[in-house]
Amino acid sequence: MQTIHQRFQIEYQYSVFFTENLFHQNNPLLKDFFSNYKDQGFQRKALVVVDEGFANHHPTLEQDIKSYFESQVQDIALAKDIIFVPGGEASKNDPALFEKLCKAVDIYGIDRHSFVVGIGGGAVLDLVGYAAAVSHRGIKLIRIPTTVLSQNDSGVGVKNGINFHGKKNFLGTFAPAVAVFNDLTFLRSLEDRDWRGGISEAIKVALIKDAGFFTWMEENATKLVNRDEEAMAYLIHRCAEMHTDHIAGGDPFEFGSSRPLDFGHWAAHKLEYLTNFEVRHGEAVAIGIALDCVYAVQIGMLAESDLYRILDLLTKLGFDLYHPKLAENDKINLRNGLQEFREHLGGRLTIMLLEKIGKGVEVHELDADIIAKSVDYLETATLATPEKIS
Amino acid sequence: MQTIHQRFQIEYQYSVFFTENLFHQNNPLLKDFFSNYKDQGFQRKALVVVDEGFANHHPTLEQDIKSYFESQVQDIALAKDIIFVPGGEASKNDPALFEKLCKAVDIYGIDRHSFVVGIGGGAVLDLVGYAAAVSHRGIKLIRIPTTVLSQNDSGVGVKNGINFHGKKNFLGTFAPAVAVFNDLTFLRSLEDRDWRGGISEAIKVALIKDAGFFTWMEENATKLVNRDEEAMAYLIHRCAEMHTDHIAGGDPFEFGSSRPLDFGHWAAHKLEYLTNFEVRHGEAVAIGIALDCVYAVQIGMLAESDLYRILDLLTKLGFDLYHPKLAENDKINLRNGLQEFREHLGGRLTIMLLEKIGKGVEVHELDADIIAKSVDYLETATLATPEKIS
Ligand SMILES: NC(=O)c1ccc[n+]([C@@H]2O[C@H](COP(=O)([O-])OP(=O)(O)OC[C@H]3O[C@@H](n4cnc5c(N)ncnc54)[C@H](O)[C@@H]3O)[C@@H](O)[C@H]2O)c1
Ligand SMILES: NC(=O)c1ccc[n+]([C@@H]2O[C@H](COP(=O)([O-])OP(=O)(O)OC[C@H]3O[C@@H](n4cnc5c(N)ncnc54)[C@H](O)[C@@H]3O)[C@@H](O)[C@H]2O)c1
Ligand SMILES: [Zn+2]
Ligand SMILES: [Zn+2]
Repeated sequence: MQTIHQRFQIEYQYSVFFTENLFHQNNPLLKDFFSNYKDQGFQRKALVVVDEGFANHHPTLEQDIKSYFESQVQDIALAKDIIFVPGGEASKNDPALFEKLCKAVDIYGIDRHSFVVGIGGGAVLDLVGYAAAVSHRGIKLIRIPTTVLSQNDSGVGVKNGINFHGKKNFLGTFAPAVAVFNDLTFLRSLEDRDWRGGISEAIKVALIKDAGFFTWMEENATKLVNRDEEAMAYLIHRCAEMHTDHIAGGDPFEFGSSRPLDFGHWAAHKLEYLTNFEVRHGEAVAIGIALDCVYAVQIGMLAESDLYRILDLLTKLGFDLYHPKLAENDKINLRNGLQEFREHLGGRLTIMLLEKIGKGVEVHELDADIIAKSVDYLETATLATPEKIS
Repeated sequence: MQTIHQRFQIEYQYSVFFTENLFHQNNPLLKDFFSNYKDQGFQRKALVVVDEGFANHHPTLEQDIKSYFESQVQDIALAKDIIFVPGGEASKNDPALFEKLCKAVDIYGIDRHSFVVGIGGGAVLDLVGYAAAVSHRGIKLIRIPTTVLSQNDSGVGVKNGINFHGKKNFLGTFAPAVAVFNDLTFLRSLEDRDWRGGISEAIKVALIKDAGFFTWMEENATKLVNRDEEAMAYLIHRCAEMHTDHIAGGDPFEFGSSRPLDFGHWAAHKLEYLTNFEVRHGEAVAIGIALDCVYAVQIGMLAESDLYRILDLLTKLGFDLYHPKLAENDKINLRNGLQEFREHLGGRLTIMLLEKIGKGVEVHELDADIIAKSVDYLETATLATPEKIS
């Protein structure tokens, strides 16, 4: 019998909107978006899931959402309850929360033409996105990211996931949202560390792709530290744009082994785990970038002057460059992260390193001794100013 | 800030191979397939998961697989254990089995460039496919279907899933395999009811798309009943081809509300549940087809002569046309299935009915009283030959 050859393409599109005061009665953005989904013959619904850590700072949120839907979005029936989940990594560690969301999809009769709306940080969006992606084989997802990191990176991308038996993002899918709404005003309530945290993803993408953007951050470091919203709006937009461009231009569902946007991430993921998530993703990425840049200098790939600019910017922004867990167990714990990173990506170990600011280059192995030396370097660097170390 | 518009396409392709004695040393098919995946720099692995109901009839299977990999497929490292899971719907009902497979992916170090190989009936393949699709956000899946239904329908398609809190296929994804291997000899050990069961999916697709194929089945009914392998090979190939063509030509990931291939399925899904899966999927589909064809006659859409041909073929093949659970609770239980079907598909209720043999047509409502009458009709029909009823 003749072999059957099957072949087809799936097209995805979505928009990332930038706004302020998304749920104010006079903000038409969400209403206009939903008006594209007016249909005859059936009622679409929306189930809203909110990050408690965000909600705690926005006491009128629940009422604002309900009023907005009631007065502005008549065509979509809002589920009668809004679901709250704990914020941060805890949301991805507890399988009961995943179950709770799937059950909510069932209880409120959310079907594949209805919407799940996730509001929160990257962790909650990863959880909500995963539950939406596998319930009924995929419900339309709207992401409303409320941290810098989720507005400029995770929220605009195509991935979701939860942790499983101690493995970060072990369960997940590639599932683009149907829309992303970035509200600048939502960032006001962020702790400084989360305001800062997401900047490391912008540094990451600037370092491997856009020296001009890196320079812009150097020039605007003080503004960013002082929580200047205009500067942050620019940073988020540019970073989001670079992420979406990269995804569309490359390998959106990561069938290959190359993941340039994971620059600085192999050590970051491990450090998050080793610290039981006390070091948050963005903070860990800053350290991961620092480590891999020191490594690149050690192997003669990157100029020291570039390294100093990088460590300097990270320091100015308030990032730690070192954590004692990096050195634990003779650095073996950290180095195990390399193998785990390879396993999660699959295929050949592929690590992005830096040739110069604005240009990354992929390598396929890292030397254990040089990793160890790089860790030592960063330990010492935190005791002095970067300029004094060679 | 300007809205970012994101857009990209993902291409999928895979082949469905037809063979005999897949794991015989002199069958090069699998070896040749894997030789496309020779890479420098890393080791791909394969984790094999087998349906116990199938394995029980194939005592040398484990050894055959191990020997085949050892002598033929040097480039792929077979995980040291083969995983066995119970066959049938039980595999989709027990969340612990899903967990077990995800853990196995972790334990045996199966990454996104390695393979999970599922061998079994449609239920086991749905479970294995789901676990593979969400572990590490998607591991390459090879399906080796061992029932008629999985060889001609579920195994060649793009869906997977498990049941969740009593809802069939509530959790799942759209995730094509990288290859499907249909081995005719694997079907020899099937119980008659499973040999027969999958034929209902061929009848389904013939009825809505290909009158000629329906006629072929009428002409070959006796052969099919007598387990003629040549006839079955043709039936499976034609049915698989119609399924893959439909998927590629239409809406592979079912973004719309239309699901022609679910002809006969709304009642079938409900009946499976109402009977606690004692009635199997293919058997339930036969009854679902019968019911919807009677319905179509009742509303004057389908000619009675066509109905008789359909009921006659189903009967000749040994299918029941009725089950007492259809009538339970004044048929309300059955009718609830209509709403659940709509919810799972999402959007507007869309049901495929038959205009004539070879031509389906979609409708957007079914009348409760006429459903009830159609059930009564089938109840009576089972007490007489179809020809005697009007
Ligand atoms: N899917 C992806 O592509 C991707 C990419 C990068 C990171 N991530 C994931 O994102 C997560 C990190 O996300 P994050 O940095 O947004 O942190 P987070 O989601 O862990 O949130 C940090 C804390 O801020 C709180 N919070 C959220 N919004 C707030 C607000 N506006 N005001 C006050 N508090 C607020 C949360 O409740 C939480 O306690 C990690 O799990 C990481 O793995 C995913
Ligand atoms: N994913 C899809 O697109 C799709 C489409 C249609 C049906 N399905 C699903 O497929 C399932 C039904 O699959 P099925 O009809 O293959 O039945 P099944 O998987 O339930 O298997 C029936 C029985 O046959 C046994 N078995 C399997 N192969 C055998 C062999 N060669 N010899 C002897 N015994 C064998 C199994 O252990 C089981 O006990 C349902 O769960 C249904 O929902 C999925
Ligand atoms: Zn990141
Ligand atoms: Zn079916």
